Amino acid sequence: MKLKKKERQEKLKEMIEETPFITDEELAKTFDVSIQTIRLDRLELSIPELRERIKHVANNNWNETLKALPIDEVIGEVVNLELDNLAISILDIKEEHVFSRNMIARGHHLFAQANSLAVAVINDELALTANAEIYFTRPVKAGERVIAKASVVGHDKKRTVVEVKSYVNSEVVFEGKFHMYRTTERKS
Amino acid sequence: MKLKKKERQEKLKEMIEETPFITDEELAKTFDVSIQTIRLDRLELSIPELRERIKHVANNNWNETLKALPIDEVIGEVVNLELDNLAISILDIKEEHVFSRNMIARGHHLFAQANSLAVAVINDELALTANAEIYFTRPVKAGERVIAKASVVGHDKKRTVVEVKSYVNSEVVFEGKFHMYRTTERKS
Repeated sequence: MKLKKKERQEKLKEMIEETPFITDEELAKTFDVSIQTIRLDRLELSIPELRERIKHVANNNWNETLKALPIDEVIGEVVNLELDNLAISILDIKEEHVFSRNMIARGHHLFAQANSLAVAVINDELALTANAEIYFTRPVKAGERVIAKASVVGHDKKRTVVEVKSYVNSEVVFEGKFHMYRTTERKS
Repeated sequence: MKLKKKERQEKLKEMIEETPFITDEELAKTFDVSIQTIRLDRLELSIPELRERIKHVANNNWNETLKALPIDEVIGEVVNLELDNLAISILDIKEEHVFSRNMIARGHHLFAQANSLAVAVINDELALTANAEIYFTRPVKAGERVIAKASVVGHDKKRTVVEVKSYVNSEVVFEGKFHMYRTTERKS
């Protein structure tokens, strides 16, 4: 049953607060209205679009500069970066990313997004992956938007452990723990 | 000190028998002669070139047909395939595969070669990676040739474990254990 506008807008606001990475498409489906209606709701409620919300989530400065690699070598679009702490990127899954047979995203593209983000978050001129444990927790289809969050969770002198979780809407689709070599000892 | 031709050819033959994946470049370096000399040695000794040797190693029929994906979706060139048993592929590392800064191959390309080979070896219409543990054991540089060997090492009803080892010459550069979903139960 469709909700009345006021009720819908209240629930919409709540839902976006709880799961800020939810897309307009997903919201439209949830409330059984058109995407255009959701956009108008957001406008009236002054809720920015997804991309802006993501940038906002981690009280983003994004003034930091990638150290370990040039930005165009990151797979996906980096929307947030705090070196040696947190990085977020967006990858839109297109036809070139999927198996032709079933339109499911190929593992190495999700891996590439996560792994390059794990490199990007390192505050060092050289960062290389030593090893990783990875989990593909649900298939991703063409047309879906994958948001990867890389968090630095541990250090010893020459290794940094980076955890990456990738989401479609609020569902985890990929998880990885990356053990990264770095050349220099961490200043802390 | 350079060896005499006859001595060199004897040692060359031994070396190729021991490490069949060794390249002409590597042999030239070892014996301190030109690559052209190695080629002539091989001709005189009737030792086929590397690509042919690789095809030969696993008493290759390679009459088998990939089930889980079309051949052009495998990253690297498949040179051997025995479904649900063994697959081998070659990937030449070029400039597009490396970090611009240090010419070291990016992890996701080695991963893509290994992972797509793990898919290819599965005798099923659908194979998806569930999870994996992976190790990058030494950096690979532009110009190097990576030979990946995928072996099926275990099964339960709906999962198949595939181990992949990737080599440059006789050195292991990547190791991975891939746990693969398949749609149908294995006939055995």
